[in-house]
Amino acid sequence: MNLAQKNCTEFVEVLASKAAVPGGGGAAALVGAIGTALGSMVCNLTIGKKKYAQYEEEVKDILKEAGEIEAQLLKMIDDDAENFLPLSKAYGIKASTPEEKAEKDRVLQSALKKACEVPIQIVKTAYKAIKLHERLVDKGSRLAISDVGVGVQCLRAALISGQLNVIININSITDDEYVKKVGEETKKLVEEGTKIADQVYQKVEEALTK
Amino acid sequence: MNLAQKNCTEFVEVLASKAAVPGGGGAAALVGAIGTALGSMVCNLTIGKKKYAQYEEEVKDILKEAGEIEAQLLKMIDDDAENFLPLSKAYGIKASTPEEKAEKDRVLQSALKKACEVPIQIVKTAYKAIKLHERLVDKGSRLAISDVGVGVQCLRAALISGQLNVIININSITDDEYVKKVGEETKKLVEEGTKIADQVYQKVEEALTK
Repeated sequence: MNLAQKNCTEFVEVLASKAAVPGGGGAAALVGAIGTALGSMVCNLTIGKKKYAQYEEEVKDILKEAGEIEAQLLKMIDDDAENFLPLSKAYGIKASTPEEKAEKDRVLQSALKKACEVPIQIVKTAYKAIKLHERLVDKGSRLAISDVGVGVQCLRAALISGQLNVIININSITDDEYVKKVGEETKKLVEEGTKIADQVYQKVEEALTK
Repeated sequence: MNLAQKNCTEFVEVLASKAAVPGGGGAAALVGAIGTALGSMVCNLTIGKKKYAQYEEEVKDILKEAGEIEAQLLKMIDDDAENFLPLSKAYGIKASTPEEKAEKDRVLQSALKKACEVPIQIVKTAYKAIKLHERLVDKGSRLAISDVGVGVQCLRAALISGQLNVIININSITDDEYVKKVGEETKKLVEEGTKIADQVYQKVEEALTK
């Protein structure tokens, strides 16, 4: 589908349209990739600077991990679109007899779980990237500290947005065990991740208002 | 410069690099455009639906305004980059005599004010787009309510990120009157805008967990 190959203007235009994809999931993945890239930028502006030599190896590790996360999140834009289409199709299945209705429900339940997969990954990945920013706020170049703040705000949005896309799907899933497991798992990451993001942002704010 | 014409992957890559632009300002503008586009998508999924006929005209108005905001924010990606380059250059001016130092400071102060312009606009524009989502959360299609939530989270990030890019510049500006005016103006919009965004998000959450 190659949605990440669209230019930014085109992406925004197709997102704004009533086209089935990209939707909130793809937007969350892109915003997460943008947030993570700001972390990478801060690493790149820190590496090689004498003042931060003591953190050099750690910042290189953060940069490596951030690069992997960016690639994963960009890929998720397409993955989410591909996983959403079967659901969109399943909702349209005509069913009048009890047998047809049962079959539609079976297809729908399977499609709903499929549609949850990428949003769950967005939550997990945005959480990881927030943890990278938690290290960067202390170890990255002071000159780029506002970018750590922007990065972590974008990731906070991606994290919560991933969860919204989980919730809207699990609301229609009848497998209670799955709903409980996925719901609790993402809720925990969002609560913790939001808290860490807010702490990182507060540190940025304090550094900027000193 | 046409940064919005880069594809999403390229944009993320150049953002991650140590290149002077795009930076946190351009990222904030793009994330704001993505958030606004989700509002437009909700409008497009609402218009023409019988259930929401009573809101049809208002939703059309929201869509029109959102489309204008998307275009403005996409343009700001380039505008911010163009306004940042003179500042980046000014910092590099060699100055040893008192006259040279005074001249460097004059150029720097002017470049700092220039670099504030787009971040101020990002704050104002993200605030407006949050206000559109405040109307949409009650008048947009329930089927797309999670997208209102994602949109408003992206805009919350853009709003705060715009302010961070104002602060990092006004911190070095010596014109106290300008600093006070711009600082207060953006602070007020961020406080109000964040509050509204959080209220909209809470409505979305309530609607999804009913």
